[in-house]
Amino acid sequence: MKKMEEKILNEAAVLPGGVLKVGSFLNQQVDTKFMKEVGEEIARLYKDEGVTKILTIEASGIPIAIAAGFAMEVPVVYAKKNKSSNVSGDSYSTPVKSFTHGDTNNVIVTKEYLSKDDKILIVDDFLAHGSALTGLIDITKQAGASLAGCVAAIEKGFQMGGDKLRAKGYRIESLAIIDEMTDDEIVFREQ
Amino acid sequence: MKKMEEKILNEAAVLPGGVLKVGSFLNQQVDTKFMKEVGEEIARLYKDEGVTKILTIEASGIPIAIAAGFAMEVPVVYAKKNKSSNVSGDSYSTPVKSFTHGDTNNVIVTKEYLSKDDKILIVDDFLAHGSALTGLIDITKQAGASLAGCVAAIEKGFQMGGDKLRAKGYRIESLAIIDEMTDDEIVFREQ
Repeated sequence: MKKMEEKILNEAAVLPGGVLKVGSFLNQQVDTKFMKEVGEEIARLYKDEGVTKILTIEASGIPIAIAAGFAMEVPVVYAKKNKSSNVSGDSYSTPVKSFTHGDTNNVIVTKEYLSKDDKILIVDDFLAHGSALTGLIDITKQAGASLAGCVAAIEKGFQMGGDKLRAKGYRIESLAIIDEMTDDEIVFREQ
Repeated sequence: MKKMEEKILNEAAVLPGGVLKVGSFLNQQVDTKFMKEVGEEIARLYKDEGVTKILTIEASGIPIAIAAGFAMEVPVVYAKKNKSSNVSGDSYSTPVKSFTHGDTNNVIVTKEYLSKDDKILIVDDFLAHGSALTGLIDITKQAGASLAGCVAAIEKGFQMGGDKLRAKGYRIESLAIIDEMTDDEIVFREQ
């Protein structure tokens, strides 16, 4: 998505530790006009897949998932992060490691919101090592639902999570893939 | 909003401890068709107020704020919860007590996303004791921005937070106000 690349070039900042700051338009502050276009692009990518539900993870995945849900007219389910390992029997749960925060959360979804008849589209803001998507794919499997694929707004291609998931046969669409990132330069993968 | 009351009557459950479970349509799972109507209703309520930005708090306020931001065509900013009291100088911060979880979080917003020229509409899913809205009002004041008012999807009128804020002169709109709630019955306030 050309406009995602432009937003990154014009508004993002590269912080120490390989952090890409996109708080002005993607998380923390959400540019809703742009986000509406993001939702429409996701709907276009998966329009022939019979998606019945969008699955994301709190908190920064929610704006993109809602935008996609509006465009595709399907419900959105967001997984919650739960520090405790105490998960009741009415929830699906999987551990997800955060490389940004250096901790692991149990990610949970109440069972009644996913069914084996669902065809799930997983959406998130960032795809780096792939741990969040891997966790949401695991929850989709636990529910016995089928998976249409995944969308990340921004993929850090150099952290390999996306390509590892593609190698396993999953459809992974990223609206922008960054293959190199320094203070001075951001290089996108040709798509 | 009649349809909010109907959704509560048809889909919500009253759990022990005065918890109203609305996970099937408002949080955890989001009914996006309904949420679009919620956004349009919020836009209608505040259409003459010159709102420039919507402010909410992660995570369950985000879907409603995005819906309102889409309808009003203004950006959405969401405050983050931060367990540590370590807040850097580039953020506004205020403590918010959660009565559901029994803990207090520092709620933070990066300063660059709110300005004194902004007219803020605060949006959240629940209004009970009013601590989240009070915190977001405090952050609005710290930024020197003006406040158009607040919207809650569901107000627990019997917990008095909404009426206390109204008594202070704030405009507080709730799409449904529950004045009594038992296992058997939910009584809405006439609006």
